[in-house]
Amino acid sequence: MRKLIIFVFALTHLSAAFGQPKNSEMKNFTLVIHGGAGTILKKNMTDEKEAAYKEQLNKALQTGYKILSEGGTSTDAIEAAIMVMEDSPLFNAGKGAVFTNDGKNEMDASIMEGKTLEAGAVAQVNTIKNPIKAARAVMEKSQHVMMVGEGAVRFARENKLEIVDSSYFYDEKRWQQLENIRGSNDVEMDHSEERGDVNKKQFDAEFDATVDEKFGTVGAVAIDVYGNIAAGTSTGGMTNKMYGRVGDSPIIGAGTYANNKTCGVSCTGHGEYFIRAVVAYDISAIMENKGVSLEEAANEVIHKKLVEMGGSGGIIAVDSKGNYALIFNTEGMYRGVVKADNKPEVYIYKN
Amino acid sequence: MRKLIIFVFALTHLSAAFGQPKNSEMKNFTLVIHGGAGTILKKNMTDEKEAAYKEQLNKALQTGYKILSEGGTSTDAIEAAIMVMEDSPLFNAGKGAVFTNDGKNEMDASIMEGKTLEAGAVAQVNTIKNPIKAARAVMEKSQHVMMVGEGAVRFARENKLEIVDSSYFYDEKRWQQLENIRGSNDVEMDHSEERGDVNKKQFDAEFDATVDEKFGTVGAVAIDVYGNIAAGTSTGGMTNKMYGRVGDSPIIGAGTYANNKTCGVSCTGHGEYFIRAVVAYDISAIMENKGVSLEEAANEVIHKKLVEMGGSGGIIAVDSKGNYALIFNTEGMYRGVVKADNKPEVYIYKN
Repeated sequence: MRKLIIFVFALTHLSAAFGQPKNSEMKNFTLVIHGGAGTILKKNMTDEKEAAYKEQLNKALQTGYKILSEGGTSTDAIEAAIMVMEDSPLFNAGKGAVFTNDGKNEMDASIMEGKTLEAGAVAQVNTIKNPIKAARAVMEKSQHVMMVGEGAVRFARENKLEIVDSSYFYDEKRWQQLENIRGSNDVEMDHSEERGDVNKKQFDAEFDATVDEKFGTVGAVAIDVYGNIAAGTSTGGMTNKMYGRVGDSPIIGAGTYANNKTCGVSCTGHGEYFIRAVVAYDISAIMENKGVSLEEAANEVIHKKLVEMGGSGGIIAVDSKGNYALIFNTEGMYRGVVKADNKPEVYIYKN
Repeated sequence: MRKLIIFVFALTHLSAAFGQPKNSEMKNFTLVIHGGAGTILKKNMTDEKEAAYKEQLNKALQTGYKILSEGGTSTDAIEAAIMVMEDSPLFNAGKGAVFTNDGKNEMDASIMEGKTLEAGAVAQVNTIKNPIKAARAVMEKSQHVMMVGEGAVRFARENKLEIVDSSYFYDEKRWQQLENIRGSNDVEMDHSEERGDVNKKQFDAEFDATVDEKFGTVGAVAIDVYGNIAAGTSTGGMTNKMYGRVGDSPIIGAGTYANNKTCGVSCTGHGEYFIRAVVAYDISAIMENKGVSLEEAANEVIHKKLVEMGGSGGIIAVDSKGNYALIFNTEGMYRGVVKADNKPEVYIYKN
């Protein structure tokens, strides 16, 4: 008996020495992902398409799960999960990014760590294969938080990230979407006019239509066995966008936020509203200042504050206890969750 | 007597019909401005230099005061006050913007209205004479919040904003600053290395040194006689910056925020920390969630949360009752305030 105790004691301390988590902690990790929110309706979906999305969402969850279950960090897990979705043409990020008005791809991404509050973001990058890796490089290998355009691409190149020809991002379906929008009603056509209710409503309707086609942004949030939270978001922006428009995805506080004291959040939706409502940080701030649960804070922001402003979209989030929230005010959100028991769940429509 | 009452009644209602404020409200407006925070020490300042700064700060205050006292909006007032500072080479915004590593100017600006929560921002723009006007055009004439780089310049041009040759921004003193930094220790030299305490400390020291030379960002916040708050910020960024770095100034929530329910805020300081701490919005969120005063909320963010993270800088802010805060954790901040009694006050050092 004594030997057994010593053996167990030694084992526990050996694990600790190698940075391994204790077994009880091992059970406490959570990974959530999203692949965009919008008017995603079952009636518009084929069985094949639905199966394809679920397959990719499951692949992203399994990729992150493997890392977390082996004692990897939340940062590694969310980066890997996001890369699976960036590499799939199903989602509007990385390969599959939508086209701007002049037929280019301009991608944005951001990442944040809840332990250190370190963060990184890139915006308007075109030839970086995985923008989320560039955001991470900005966080880890520079003293800056945000880099934009050519400068960000140069930084990625100097840090040995994979640079691809812009043809890599070409996707026939995305191109057709651009042609369709160009041919009918241009999302950005009325830019030179004064804003007004008519323009705004038209724009919102067009936004819903394009979201329906482009299925938004991707993101992941996790807490690892060490209790550290990380969150990340990656997007190809809006089909047919002009004027170097940047949405909420690369904005720390708006599209992405993480803090071990409260929660990690990744957003998807009508980016302009998410910026103005500082959505990701607001959920954390409400938890911190009012002491309410993640679910309560997220519901207040998504179903109350954002709705009052007229903003549509959703969030995925994880709190410091491993609780999670997958909340949206649209018809659907591609989303999934996996915990240490490895029973991944993926959803598309409202439950 | 009866005639007098009818006359006064008619006058009041005529005023209302033309959108004029009532006289009692007329007294309640506040404008605050800043011209950057940093290690600004009296021992490094000549009387002439000090007088020049105070003159420009007073000019900015008077320009905004005139608008507010005549019943103009807070948006008009802060835009005009910021333009005075953008047009002066004393401040690091517009004319006087510092140079990037490759000898260019890349400017950022943002603006937000507290009544509608509408916002606009531009980043990495080079030939727009007054970036704050471009931010306002994005807010008022597009459905977007943020535009970056060439696209933002094209938008400004299409909206008839003044475009100038890049030589307009040339300032001998700024160029010398770039040469000095290039010659000694490059702010961005260690980008390809892993972050570490040494690099970070070195960077912070360099930041202090450069802030001392470039005197940061400019900004203004006001509440008008209608009770509407507006906030704006404009900057030339960091001397010798590389890789398309963007700081907090064009980030809604970080560098600028306004909400009639709480307050308006404009920030200046070490931008990376202000992004990670979501400083401008945090002050509003603490007021909203905890019901504390502007001063208490601003002190908590600038003197506690930001200091714990290692971030230096300051804020100017106005709340919905016209109270104001000029708070910083650095040696000094160029700042000023004027209320309806037209007794402008400007300060540079700690009081």
